[in-house]
Amino acid sequence: MSQETMGAVVKSRPAPGAEWMQVPVPKVGPDEALIQVRAASICGTDLHIYEWDDWASQRVRTPHVMGHETAGDVVEVGREVSTIRAGDYVSVETHITCGTCYPCRVGRAEVCSNVKIVGVDTNGSFARYLLIPARCAWKNDRSLPPEIATLQEPLGNAVDTVLAEDISGKTVVVLGAGPVGLLAIGVARASGASAIFATDVSDYRLGLARRMGATHAFNPRKDQVVEAILDLTRGDGVDVVIEMSGNPEALAQGFKVLAPGGRLSLLGLSHGPVRVDLNNEVILKGARIYGITGRKIFTTWYKSSRLLSSGLLDLNPLLTHRLPVTEFRAAMELMERGECGKIVLLPAA
Amino acid sequence: MSQETMGAVVKSRPAPGAEWMQVPVPKVGPDEALIQVRAASICGTDLHIYEWDDWASQRVRTPHVMGHETAGDVVEVGREVSTIRAGDYVSVETHITCGTCYPCRVGRAEVCSNVKIVGVDTNGSFARYLLIPARCAWKNDRSLPPEIATLQEPLGNAVDTVLAEDISGKTVVVLGAGPVGLLAIGVARASGASAIFATDVSDYRLGLARRMGATHAFNPRKDQVVEAILDLTRGDGVDVVIEMSGNPEALAQGFKVLAPGGRLSLLGLSHGPVRVDLNNEVILKGARIYGITGRKIFTTWYKSSRLLSSGLLDLNPLLTHRLPVTEFRAAMELMERGECGKIVLLPAA
Amino acid sequence: MSQETMGAVVKSRPAPGAEWMQVPVPKVGPDEALIQVRAASICGTDLHIYEWDDWASQRVRTPHVMGHETAGDVVEVGREVSTIRAGDYVSVETHITCGTCYPCRVGRAEVCSNVKIVGVDTNGSFARYLLIPARCAWKNDRSLPPEIATLQEPLGNAVDTVLAEDISGKTVVVLGAGPVGLLAIGVARASGASAIFATDVSDYRLGLARRMGATHAFNPRKDQVVEAILDLTRGDGVDVVIEMSGNPEALAQGFKVLAPGGRLSLLGLSHGPVRVDLNNEVILKGARIYGITGRKIFTTWYKSSRLLSSGLLDLNPLLTHRLPVTEFRAAMELMERGECGKIVLLPAA
Amino acid sequence: MSQETMGAVVKSRPAPGAEWMQVPVPKVGPDEALIQVRAASICGTDLHIYEWDDWASQRVRTPHVMGHETAGDVVEVGREVSTIRAGDYVSVETHITCGTCYPCRVGRAEVCSNVKIVGVDTNGSFARYLLIPARCAWKNDRSLPPEIATLQEPLGNAVDTVLAEDISGKTVVVLGAGPVGLLAIGVARASGASAIFATDVSDYRLGLARRMGATHAFNPRKDQVVEAILDLTRGDGVDVVIEMSGNPEALAQGFKVLAPGGRLSLLGLSHGPVRVDLNNEVILKGARIYGITGRKIFTTWYKSSRLLSSGLLDLNPLLTHRLPVTEFRAAMELMERGECGKIVLLPAA
Repeated sequence: MSQETMGAVVKSRPAPGAEWMQVPVPKVGPDEALIQVRAASICGTDLHIYEWDDWASQRVRTPHVMGHETAGDVVEVGREVSTIRAGDYVSVETHITCGTCYPCRVGRAEVCSNVKIVGVDTNGSFARYLLIPARCAWKNDRSLPPEIATLQEPLGNAVDTVLAEDISGKTVVVLGAGPVGLLAIGVARASGASAIFATDVSDYRLGLARRMGATHAFNPRKDQVVEAILDLTRGDGVDVVIEMSGNPEALAQGFKVLAPGGRLSLLGLSHGPVRVDLNNEVILKGARIYGITGRKIFTTWYKSSRLLSSGLLDLNPLLTHRLPVTEFRAAMELMERGECGKIVLLPAA
Repeated sequence: MSQETMGAVVKSRPAPGAEWMQVPVPKVGPDEALIQVRAASICGTDLHIYEWDDWASQRVRTPHVMGHETAGDVVEVGREVSTIRAGDYVSVETHITCGTCYPCRVGRAEVCSNVKIVGVDTNGSFARYLLIPARCAWKNDRSLPPEIATLQEPLGNAVDTVLAEDISGKTVVVLGAGPVGLLAIGVARASGASAIFATDVSDYRLGLARRMGATHAFNPRKDQVVEAILDLTRGDGVDVVIEMSGNPEALAQGFKVLAPGGRLSLLGLSHGPVRVDLNNEVILKGARIYGITGRKIFTTWYKSSRLLSSGLLDLNPLLTHRLPVTEFRAAMELMERGECGKIVLLPAA
Repeated sequence: MSQETMGAVVKSRPAPGAEWMQVPVPKVGPDEALIQVRAASICGTDLHIYEWDDWASQRVRTPHVMGHETAGDVVEVGREVSTIRAGDYVSVETHITCGTCYPCRVGRAEVCSNVKIVGVDTNGSFARYLLIPARCAWKNDRSLPPEIATLQEPLGNAVDTVLAEDISGKTVVVLGAGPVGLLAIGVARASGASAIFATDVSDYRLGLARRMGATHAFNPRKDQVVEAILDLTRGDGVDVVIEMSGNPEALAQGFKVLAPGGRLSLLGLSHGPVRVDLNNEVILKGARIYGITGRKIFTTWYKSSRLLSSGLLDLNPLLTHRLPVTEFRAAMELMERGECGKIVLLPAA
Repeated sequence: MSQETMGAVVKSRPAPGAEWMQVPVPKVGPDEALIQVRAASICGTDLHIYEWDDWASQRVRTPHVMGHETAGDVVEVGREVSTIRAGDYVSVETHITCGTCYPCRVGRAEVCSNVKIVGVDTNGSFARYLLIPARCAWKNDRSLPPEIATLQEPLGNAVDTVLAEDISGKTVVVLGAGPVGLLAIGVARASGASAIFATDVSDYRLGLARRMGATHAFNPRKDQVVEAILDLTRGDGVDVVIEMSGNPEALAQGFKVLAPGGRLSLLGLSHGPVRVDLNNEVILKGARIYGITGRKIFTTWYKSSRLLSSGLLDLNPLLTHRLPVTEFRAAMELMERGECGKIVLLPAA
């Protein structure tokens, strides 16, 4: 690149907040690719880093460019890269896997023991350019708008959570209607879930849940969630619980409405360990529980991109805010208030 | 029942054709149920019996009341029946399974070694009343119209064929757009298949295929099916082949477009054995093939009825003809000409 | 039966203990079978009933004949029974399932919502005769000794726990070497588990674990279980955790040694809810957890009986005590001290 | 390497036969490894190349060094190789996969669309040295003898064929007791198959089959295979068919003895397409068929090596001949006469 510096959202010191500043444009190594960012959506993880919580302070090293959900154009590739080239329009798989650990060698790279995450363990995409290993690039069709293309990363999480087993013709509860929960609702609907019960403490988000395809939406602060769902399923309970909230009370409700023989997929992280009645909710029920993290590389990307390109899954209801990247502080405040679906940061003018 | 006889479509002797005649209303045994038929749809099997082909002449004993796809009202149950009662609105699982053979005892009752089929091995439902073992009744919701409710039996076949593995975000070809093929297209679309290629030699049926959700429709008499599908999948081929035609040429095309590592589900019966290039199409491709017959009792019924009640699957485009049962000859002629989707026979006035 | 009374181990009042007394021989209903008991093994559940713990006092109604693991000869069947007859040699599936609840109708009868358990909710087999629904009988080959045949009931639990997923060529830890844990070790070894780590606080039982096929045995009171297992698996951890102890500390160790992408099957019941670090042990690890109860009826019985008849699984090391049923008090004391593998009660002289 | 030439079995021109001659020691590229061969076993594919059949003449380019099943010591690695180093003792995964085709990107590299096979599409291991991409090396434990370590490649095929689904407590027929069939028998026995029926036209190989763990062995030229197996399974048929013969008659027998709801895994390649009665043997039986090729990289290698190192699987009965590599002609003649299990070529003195 002829340019030498670029604007970026930088966590410059180990404390809450971040700054818009000029940093060097990264140099491209032999197996790397430089991406000019066209859209970068904000994840809950970005908020944790912004707020500098315990997890972030132990994991992230400053100075650090934030951001990992990304769509953009390849502007330069290293000399050993043959799978993509300058001009390609790509999204980014954010798990940089080692390829040599036991999980990687048995086809479970998404739980790589030595994983690095783009924008967490490396510099990220709330910037003009993002540097990634070339193998993390997923080529997009030009017809997919950047603000949708960037959402494929969290969408992949939702896809793997919902589709850990078959969902068509099944009844489902999605606990938590934050962005990934909303994506899960959309995936479940597009994949044939016949009843989708959404729960969240925010009526705003329950409204989005309905727009994404929830057939029923409950606010545990107002509604008798367990009774209502059991009633609507004739006492049978639901076939599938999708846990997206990280909230132990929501999880407890999920276990209570899970039908014997049912399936529970967990993605939402909680604050510390959780008490679970394994006897009654797992063992005697013959339940199956799946922990989900990351995405199947690239199996999940095929599914996600096809659900989008086929028109079966419309993410526009979820996409509530588009802001220039320089307005990241306003974006983070929206996230903190929960008054948003997904926020996408666009290049500064 | 106070009535002693009823009108019925009867194959009275071992020859082509059938007659509308009065026969005794069946007596209800201790574990049986008598159903007043509200709708009875016609299956290809009924046509085989009507035309008295080789299979039919070896299997069916005359005199025989035809018909098996059924929705109706329970009017009487035997003294040991507790699961349904008079007044219930039901559809009929047509596999009468033995419960004691090896497949039945290991949870594979749909391939029961001693199966009897309603309307094939017993008297059927092209009549005012149908007698069934009470355990073959599936209770319907009153909101489901009888002409849709009767379709749940073949729909179950389509559901098991399409959902033998996950289908969401996958590319699919459905070979054969007869009624079960059309149902499969609807199920695939409702369950998230991102591209659905339909093939059939009838342009009429390809039109129905598009209305049921096919994204592309090909007529092998006019189109280069294999080339077209490979082209539309960038040379990768399709993830899933659904074989509904029983046609060896269609099957050969299906194998050719199946991606390495793909899945093929077979339901369509062919005329005798078929040549298969197991080396190149199955072994070296690492393909998986599933033979499908019957339905999972009652797992599949739950899925099928939920796809309908949720509104995700609309069978109306498929339902091309409604005729009084006394016009069964006209119906059979429509079937022979292939100028129909699904035909439903309704009670005589 | 011409006899009118029989000896039986009876919990005559709601308090600890039991008595040997004469009770009426049960009358056989139309779909029932009377079994002359040839061997009845003791389960932990029997001990709970004997000791009259909280669970037992809420579940069991006195007077109550104890015992459920059974092998014996059919001496009489009801008039509607066609699947077995007098003279057959059988073992007993102890789950009496309803056949009409949601789990039963979707092929998950082992988690029937209305299940009754032989010897818990009905009179049991520590007696000369046992009455069961005929459909709960599993016909044995005459070559199988009664004291082995009775073990097929708990063996089925072990089979379903170990074989919830493939085990061949995998590394496994079995937490808890009580009778079902020991059975699980035998099943894992017969099914190709390449390394089987057993843990228990009793050195006596660890000795039995080795005899059943454990490749390594650890006592958490003396050994650094987690470190040792990680060391023996080169830091990768084990592919499979089999939880048979109901002990939260053992479970915590199991989670720690589970490899990313691994599988955990839970059968042991604990005293109340358990704290689980879902974030690190389930979600970020991409783990799968299966709750196991009962047996697949009769899929599991086929597997269990074949493992025995093929000689691949030898239960003799586990079978430490044979006592006349009248010595049930001595047996219960052995159970309380944990100085036993499996105890089988034989008919009184 | 200081040496410049080495002895090798070379197909020097497009015709039957091969010659022992001196060829240059290969140069090691940046991501490659040079292996000093300690044992190279002979595969049926090598015989096809030696005999120069149609397949070989279309696929192999001369001059060509033969051989692909290999164990040996790493003597040199390229500058970019970090996963292995000189002195490591390895076996060789022979599929060189592209990493960029659709199957590779969705976790099905074993059916890579652009696969190259060591010793078929590259020079092979019937030589002092073998050059491979470093990522094809599988590190062995020093305790595994080279003549066993080389067998892990074909063993992996047997493992994937047998373990395509669970096998423990199931009944199995293995069609064809050539080397891979014999390996399959060993894997099935080690993994808990309760009855293993072997079929082959060679009594010599049926003897080996029994030594590898077959419970019954049938010669279709003498025995009524179908009747015998149905008789031994009480008419139920077998749960699993493992097709290793490539013989259409054997396959037909396999289909006939397959129980309804059963599973058939295909590995043996046949001469051209095969007639299959899809109606009766696949569809109406609800059968599942898996085509198997290659190995899961490296999932299968873990399983295979653990079955060996645990002592559960003993390959010595199969290992009938050890010859110096210079005696390759004698070895090929043994193969042609079928009077062998597996032949291992050892380094020339």
